[in-house]
Amino acid sequence: MAILERSDTGAVARLTLNQPEKLNPLSDEMLAALQSTFEELANDSSIRAIILSGAGKAFCAGHDLKQMTAARAGEDGGRAYFKDLFDRCATMMQTVQRLPQPVIAEVHGIATAAGCQLVASCDMAVAATGTRFGVNGVNIGLFCSTPMVALSRNIPRKQAFEMLTTGQFISAERAEALGLVNRVVAPENLQTETEALANMVAEKLGVAVKIGKEAFYKQLEMGLSDAYDYTGDVMVENMLHRQTEAGIEAFLEKRKPEWDQ
Amino acid sequence: MAILERSDTGAVARLTLNQPEKLNPLSDEMLAALQSTFEELANDSSIRAIILSGAGKAFCAGHDLKQMTAARAGEDGGRAYFKDLFDRCATMMQTVQRLPQPVIAEVHGIATAAGCQLVASCDMAVAATGTRFGVNGVNIGLFCSTPMVALSRNIPRKQAFEMLTTGQFISAERAEALGLVNRVVAPENLQTETEALANMVAEKLGVAVKIGKEAFYKQLEMGLSDAYDYTGDVMVENMLHRQTEAGIEAFLEKRKPEWDQ
Amino acid sequence: MAILERSDTGAVARLTLNQPEKLNPLSDEMLAALQSTFEELANDSSIRAIILSGAGKAFCAGHDLKQMTAARAGEDGGRAYFKDLFDRCATMMQTVQRLPQPVIAEVHGIATAAGCQLVASCDMAVAATGTRFGVNGVNIGLFCSTPMVALSRNIPRKQAFEMLTTGQFISAERAEALGLVNRVVAPENLQTETEALANMVAEKLGVAVKIGKEAFYKQLEMGLSDAYDYTGDVMVENMLHRQTEAGIEAFLEKRKPEWDQ
Repeated sequence: MAILERSDTGAVARLTLNQPEKLNPLSDEMLAALQSTFEELANDSSIRAIILSGAGKAFCAGHDLKQMTAARAGEDGGRAYFKDLFDRCATMMQTVQRLPQPVIAEVHGIATAAGCQLVASCDMAVAATGTRFGVNGVNIGLFCSTPMVALSRNIPRKQAFEMLTTGQFISAERAEALGLVNRVVAPENLQTETEALANMVAEKLGVAVKIGKEAFYKQLEMGLSDAYDYTGDVMVENMLHRQTEAGIEAFLEKRKPEWDQ
Repeated sequence: MAILERSDTGAVARLTLNQPEKLNPLSDEMLAALQSTFEELANDSSIRAIILSGAGKAFCAGHDLKQMTAARAGEDGGRAYFKDLFDRCATMMQTVQRLPQPVIAEVHGIATAAGCQLVASCDMAVAATGTRFGVNGVNIGLFCSTPMVALSRNIPRKQAFEMLTTGQFISAERAEALGLVNRVVAPENLQTETEALANMVAEKLGVAVKIGKEAFYKQLEMGLSDAYDYTGDVMVENMLHRQTEAGIEAFLEKRKPEWDQ
Repeated sequence: MAILERSDTGAVARLTLNQPEKLNPLSDEMLAALQSTFEELANDSSIRAIILSGAGKAFCAGHDLKQMTAARAGEDGGRAYFKDLFDRCATMMQTVQRLPQPVIAEVHGIATAAGCQLVASCDMAVAATGTRFGVNGVNIGLFCSTPMVALSRNIPRKQAFEMLTTGQFISAERAEALGLVNRVVAPENLQTETEALANMVAEKLGVAVKIGKEAFYKQLEMGLSDAYDYTGDVMVENMLHRQTEAGIEAFLEKRKPEWDQ
């Protein structure tokens, strides 16, 4: 069994973190597998939505603390390894946003520390009731400083600060109310509901979603005026796409668009 | 009947998008009428609040796709027209924020694509129960890239992303929970409730609201320290205003301020 | 009785605004007392959490309008005084965020104008049911331009705009739903609940919380990529801390970490 499994159904790729006995940690091996699979998917135009899930009892429990501790044996006490590890992890998290396809986290059990960051870094998330979310590194003296980058861009700041400094878990329902997940469903429906959402996205014109997803994150970091200048140009390019022309034509003729993709 | 109607009651101007048979699209003509009316209102110190509403079954269904499609006949396939159209539209949306008076969207029926953007661009919004909000251009292959600029500055990012990539509508109640509208009222009370809100704002000292509204959007784009430097100066100017002195005096003497405005 | 009282219990310092007959205004004296006490606390490594509360019927009613009005007698009509006052106030508000310890507002009665800003500037807030929050300077012609800097970084923009331009109060429950406070509790439990939250934070490794709090606010003002570069380095430093090594070791051995702090 691979540490990261990929199985495609139609235009939807399902990735499964597959080290359930360790709660799917973001070890060196897992980070490498995610990075290379994402790069593969970035160039796979047959895939128009991606689901990210975890095998076993939990979605993901964050970094592999044993592996990190082993690195302390190095001459520099682990400094170079830690720096490289957090760089690789941040690259992977940002790759999720840079992928042309929307990525949906399918979350159950627990999502803690970098596991919670992974949920926050996905474009959307569906959680099973009973899931617990936490950025609880503070409990062992390691403040979740990189996870908070993603978390604080998903939920209001006082609520993010509380999670970070108390190390307390929040429920799936609370995560939904705060904006960290899009919907909460019964555990037995988790897979079906996530796939329904993925299929809804995969039915759209892939090139339009790709254009839009890229613009979404770029414009979020701009002032209003720059954001409009930039997205205005994005809209022009989108309008001039052959398949968009076909889509608008179909709409005006009250037909469903049929795209060749 | 004009394409955009204006009727004033006291210090409140009500603008009504008035092309109900087409669901009040933001056509070239409508954009021009909105822009010129806003510029007129910017210099009308007798008006201290503006309501923006739609005639007929819907608030606004976005751009005029027939008009846009007609532009494809041009030599450049419409490129110059589209560029100009999105520029004019973005200018109009930003003019809402630059007006000295608060602008309240009074929303019913549907508010889709650039119509939803218009709601998001207003300073406040009141919606009737049953109203549906969507940025559903993705359904026809045209990602709502300019509407998302306004939307993503109103609601959390995962929820904005979902609306943009699924093309699904959200209800008025959901829009309120996410932050897109200020309150949801029964359809029969929509006009009364919006006017009550507008009147509450129009009773304030106009120059103070003008100063504050301008500062509100400017400081949102600054870092914390710059925002404080800037708004500190704004407060000083506000304090030195003759009518503000009168307002504070009245308060200290437990009287209601009476402003000559 | 001092205008600002400090009493420590273990690693938690409780500060009480203590001019109840005037609703604890942020007068020149109160601002000076807050600033000097914060600077004292910044260097007091025995304190790992701070509670900020108000004596009497209210948390804080904002600036001292009588004192401000008296300054109008100056040759410049108060300009220099007002400029200095808003500078000192903004410095105090930003000092809350710059303190190494988390600061929790314990709010009851009312928190208005700069009093509401103080709540928004704290890292967390607990409110008693019945508390009312407002940025109501607009009612007397003085738009709450500096309070809005903090408020608009806590709650969604349309809801902030409504509070600022209508001058209406919101309830504690509404404040919680919008993100301005972390939790609402019965008045008789307010002190206990705030202290429980403070103690939970104070139990953590102080140096990790200090590192994390500083990084929290810094990264919020950065783009995603810069935020990751910066917090990656922060994580490395945190990992290399002796006490963090002990904390992770304890965790791997399923012990509770025991920190010498």
